Amino acid sequence: MRMVMTIPPKRQGQSNARRELVSQEILEKSSALFAERGFANTSLQDVAQALEISRTSLYHYIGGKEPLLAELVHGLTRETADGLEKIAANEALDPLERLEAAVLDMTTRIANKPSRFRLLLLSEGSLPPALADEHRTARKRALQYLRSIIRAGMEAGQLRALDENVAAFSVLGMCNWVAWWYQPERNGGLRVEQVAAYIADLAIASLSTSAGRLPTGKLGPQHAIEILRKDLDYLERSLKGGNGS
Amino acid sequence: MRMVMTIPPKRQGQSNARRELVSQEILEKSSALFAERGFANTSLQDVAQALEISRTSLYHYIGGKEPLLAELVHGLTRETADGLEKIAANEALDPLERLEAAVLDMTTRIANKPSRFRLLLLSEGSLPPALADEHRTARKRALQYLRSIIRAGMEAGQLRALDENVAAFSVLGMCNWVAWWYQPERNGGLRVEQVAAYIADLAIASLSTSAGRLPTGKLGPQHAIEILRKDLDYLERSLKGGNGS
Repeated sequence: MRMVMTIPPKRQGQSNARRELVSQEILEKSSALFAERGFANTSLQDVAQALEISRTSLYHYIGGKEPLLAELVHGLTRETADGLEKIAANEALDPLERLEAAVLDMTTRIANKPSRFRLLLLSEGSLPPALADEHRTARKRALQYLRSIIRAGMEAGQLRALDENVAAFSVLGMCNWVAWWYQPERNGGLRVEQVAAYIADLAIASLSTSAGRLPTGKLGPQHAIEILRKDLDYLERSLKGGNGS
Repeated sequence: MRMVMTIPPKRQGQSNARRELVSQEILEKSSALFAERGFANTSLQDVAQALEISRTSLYHYIGGKEPLLAELVHGLTRETADGLEKIAANEALDPLERLEAAVLDMTTRIANKPSRFRLLLLSEGSLPPALADEHRTARKRALQYLRSIIRAGMEAGQLRALDENVAAFSVLGMCNWVAWWYQPERNGGLRVEQVAAYIADLAIASLSTSAGRLPTGKLGPQHAIEILRKDLDYLERSLKGGNGS
């Protein structure tokens, strides 16, 4: 894999948004290289060469290997936990809507930073102790909030009564795995928001009761009636086929 | 993490099954240590010390670091692809049953060897070229078979018409993530076959149409009628609640 980057020259009035974008892109591409070649065995010089930028520019943007690890934990694990905390506490949403918001939030984060997510998982064993603690704590919090959303959905009868832990980890698996397969250029131009919507739909379908599967007011009873008609058609065919005896 | 292992003395008549079991346990525990400490930075001597066995015993069971990598690719990626190939070609099963069999097969493999699965994912960048090729090819085959099962299910009307690729990767995510959370002692004694059955149920629920969600003869129309009754109860409540206007 060869990646060429053009770093725009610094100039007066260059927008912060533009700098932030370049910075994010360099972080993401460095993470991809670290993940591919092994964090411990790859120097900043190797990464700078591969990205065809100067070591100084690279250092300017990612600030060395240790700060990169810190950025992974702060920008991914901690922000995910904080995002889920807000969603879990949002009383304006019912539990099913909270589950949808949680999956959209997690998947969007991962699809926007797939290499960094992979590198973080690969580097869990190499985190400095304080950062490892922070990472572990944030991960536990995220799981707790997701479980509490799922539990609320079960109590409200919107989600099936399943092992709460297995349900949470299954949802996490769908979201997290996005880091291993999603590349817009390889997935027919699929956009981040489309992937997020797909995964949210799949997660909800996997956990919801038939009541939860029916629309909660948004699409109205007409949609529910369509679903029931299809079910009845199927049942009729199945009885005619002799499965009913 | 400190792991103590007792290696049974070799003796005449020792059963192959017993030796195989010890061998599998050592492979799994070495993989956990390599994954935790980084493959490149961990010597066989470090692993032997951590497992409190001699370097000679360890070498006897895992045959060095390179053979361990080969075992990961052969015992995981290739066997998974071979397993899915058989299932995809099994005409005795309908597509939904093939999807169920595929998820059971993949999840069982991963839940039995979680550390090895994690190590394989962490080591993808360190595989020798020939092994990397083999791994890549087997992974592509596995994805192909899973997609063909899902496509057949969509054509048969048992699975929803979704992006086939997203559907396949979402199922893979649920299965693969098991390697990161499943530990029987931490999950209330949840057995491998229980995890596999849970994940299969969640995967099927996520992808199936309402027709696919209804029983295909096994549980009979009585079960289908119960599902429809619940749907109708829900619809009635929702209309009474004023969502129907």
